[in-house]
Amino acid sequence: MTEEEIQAHVIDLLAANDREGFREEFLQNHSFDQAQMYLNLDPEQRQKVHHFLTPKELSEVYDIIDEEDEEQIFTFLFDMDDRYAANLLSFMYTDNAVDILNELSLEQVRTYMRLMPKESADDIKSLMNYADETAGAIMTTEFVSIKANQTVKSAMTLLRAKASSAETIYYLYVVDDDNRLVGVLSLRDLIISQGNEMVYDLMSDRIVAVDVKEDQNSIAKTIKDYDFLAIPVIEETGELIGIVTVDDIIDVIDDEATQDYSGLAGVDVDEQYENPLKSSKSRLPWLITLLFLGMGTSTLISQFEDMIAEVAILSIFITLITGTAGNAGTQSLAVAVRRLATPDDEVSSFFDMVVREITTGLISGAITGFVIFAVISVWRQNIALGLVIGIAMLAAITVANLAGSLIPILMDKLGFDPAVASGPFITTLSDLTSVLIYFSIASYFMPYLQ
Amino acid sequence: MTEEEIQAHVIDLLAANDREGFREEFLQNHSFDQAQMYLNLDPEQRQKVHHFLTPKELSEVYDIIDEEDEEQIFTFLFDMDDRYAANLLSFMYTDNAVDILNELSLEQVRTYMRLMPKESADDIKSLMNYADETAGAIMTTEFVSIKANQTVKSAMTLLRAKASSAETIYYLYVVDDDNRLVGVLSLRDLIISQGNEMVYDLMSDRIVAVDVKEDQNSIAKTIKDYDFLAIPVIEETGELIGIVTVDDIIDVIDDEATQDYSGLAGVDVDEQYENPLKSSKSRLPWLITLLFLGMGTSTLISQFEDMIAEVAILSIFITLITGTAGNAGTQSLAVAVRRLATPDDEVSSFFDMVVREITTGLISGAITGFVIFAVISVWRQNIALGLVIGIAMLAAITVANLAGSLIPILMDKLGFDPAVASGPFITTLSDLTSVLIYFSIASYFMPYLQ
Repeated sequence: MTEEEIQAHVIDLLAANDREGFREEFLQNHSFDQAQMYLNLDPEQRQKVHHFLTPKELSEVYDIIDEEDEEQIFTFLFDMDDRYAANLLSFMYTDNAVDILNELSLEQVRTYMRLMPKESADDIKSLMNYADETAGAIMTTEFVSIKANQTVKSAMTLLRAKASSAETIYYLYVVDDDNRLVGVLSLRDLIISQGNEMVYDLMSDRIVAVDVKEDQNSIAKTIKDYDFLAIPVIEETGELIGIVTVDDIIDVIDDEATQDYSGLAGVDVDEQYENPLKSSKSRLPWLITLLFLGMGTSTLISQFEDMIAEVAILSIFITLITGTAGNAGTQSLAVAVRRLATPDDEVSSFFDMVVREITTGLISGAITGFVIFAVISVWRQNIALGLVIGIAMLAAITVANLAGSLIPILMDKLGFDPAVASGPFITTLSDLTSVLIYFSIASYFMPYLQ
Repeated sequence: MTEEEIQAHVIDLLAANDREGFREEFLQNHSFDQAQMYLNLDPEQRQKVHHFLTPKELSEVYDIIDEEDEEQIFTFLFDMDDRYAANLLSFMYTDNAVDILNELSLEQVRTYMRLMPKESADDIKSLMNYADETAGAIMTTEFVSIKANQTVKSAMTLLRAKASSAETIYYLYVVDDDNRLVGVLSLRDLIISQGNEMVYDLMSDRIVAVDVKEDQNSIAKTIKDYDFLAIPVIEETGELIGIVTVDDIIDVIDDEATQDYSGLAGVDVDEQYENPLKSSKSRLPWLITLLFLGMGTSTLISQFEDMIAEVAILSIFITLITGTAGNAGTQSLAVAVRRLATPDDEVSSFFDMVVREITTGLISGAITGFVIFAVISVWRQNIALGLVIGIAMLAAITVANLAGSLIPILMDKLGFDPAVASGPFITTLSDLTSVLIYFSIASYFMPYLQ
């Protein structure tokens, strides 16, 4: 059957009020496919699903929808019986439930918390306190922990009991009596061992764990380096409080990349508007803001209007200088944003980074400046003009490189995401500085240009 | 012990020729940490490691280095005994071994192939034929397959035997007698089942698999959607030939994001040069190329030199129009590149996409144009000038939007990666069209501007 046929069949079964038929057909699909079907239903059909499936069964669908289409969840939840919704939330992985609850009104959260099992409510409460984009905010508390002085056989029994609720069973975390993490054992190691071997003989005690306050980017880097499927999260005391799983890390990597890309382009690149009116609405704020910054450049040029009237040829090279400096600034910006995002990079001092970018700007600027000096001197048979453009190019590129790296560094120091510093912003700003440099240099050379 | 202390200890053990001590200390580390240590050794120390560790033990280190630092591998391999190197390659995951062999000379490949077990050589040969960035190129052949009419107990026994060599044991793939994939069973399902249950009763037959020719981006999307740890790769016949694991997909997502970001910025953003000379060398090709494209714009403006000499005020607004159009073009470019990269997006027809971008450009252009018309009419008390700038802005933004979306779409149709169309290229190109539009419109209005 194709996906469409399955969907049609499921809808027929709902229409026929065939509880058993629906459950059999629906539940044999992957939760991602279940989620697609569920999202395609109308509100009345969805109500029936809420009667036919247990909160636990539907919670797997919601774990998927949470990643895909968070907004829709709120309408769906409000259509449910509060008790059903509370149970559904309690069966979801804690990190996903917290995502949803963080967007609800305090009153609504209280209602749900009161209606769900106390243990789940406590788990959720403890996670709601962690700052966004830290280990605490993306971890889940459904992991399997064992003791070092257990046998493989007893660990296996414990694992079987927890297998249906844990987010991953492929790592077993070994804790001491104070719940401090002392070792890790993979299910692979467990499976190939004999039943009477002891956990402490098999476990690895070279633990790689992350602090609960650690930034999600840095966690992503560790998971990527070690090819982990999950990483344990510990308190400062060493107490094991959760795990971050690889599927959440994929979302982190993907979201960060989209944010960086959007930042550099000055637009939300995931705009999925079929409607140009909505696209324009999302793009115009940047365009208009930068238009006014650009007006600054125009005002600046207008100060040199008399000079241009005298030596009109100067106007020919404005875009060449602003354009090239803008390109250099964009390169420098992208490299700086990327460096700042690489957490374990040998963090160079602020001073080092700036000196390096100025030097890079000076070298690139000198070469570009020399090329343009040669071209213009020959083309226009005017060495003075060539000198003005060449020197202005050198200075404008150096300043653009400096701005391109300095702005994200400063934003980072001030606690903002450096990726917000967009390419369009840097090019527009660099237009202003380039024009100022160009006409200042030109005014020195005026006697030779006329 | 800190990492540095462990490293120093390991080096001491090597110096003391303490084979057992070295093995015990070194092998208890994660392979990522082993790789860091190995990379930090000098050639002589590395030689000793090759005597102290078996090719199989060292292969895990090489599986890690392959992702991190491919270039270094070649020097290391050539320092080894050929037979040792061949065995090392045969123990690596097939996809990683193929990565390395693809970079070697044909003669060298033949030498290694002859020296390794025939089975490994055959596996490697079959993978070397697949096109880059497809399922075939990134899959591994180390998976566990079982039959539907096995009991859980016998499947478990088979799994134990394969556990040490398979890249993942967390999914078991169920095949028929012709090796066609008929079902999937997770280790989790297996573990919570009774020993006498049959695989066909437990397995899921709603299989999600990818074709061996499928593009790696589209595989990444599926793994991300379904939260899989691995996905089976099949031939057109349905025959199961490999799996793609989540750790390789993380690298795919990361690499693609870096490429897109680098493309948009016109620079290799992962340049890690401490040396400004090298940075400049990597950035200059784009800068100089675009400088010559920018010269086109200057030449174009020079055609209007007389006009500028008469109405110098026109020159004031050149950067405003080129800058704003460049910003709009960058936005449009980034959205188009992103849309093209989202494989399962309802692919709109070429015509639809272009019409939508033109419309978005017209709307954004009309609003931006009106704003600048109003500002200039008031500021300069010159409605004709306001009209010229406003209309030019509208037209320039529309054209920039069109170019920003059309260029990546065309590149995609022609089989190039659309992400290579860089932001700096679009802004420089849009400078040219914007200037043409601006001065053409201005020349119509000349009588009213003087």
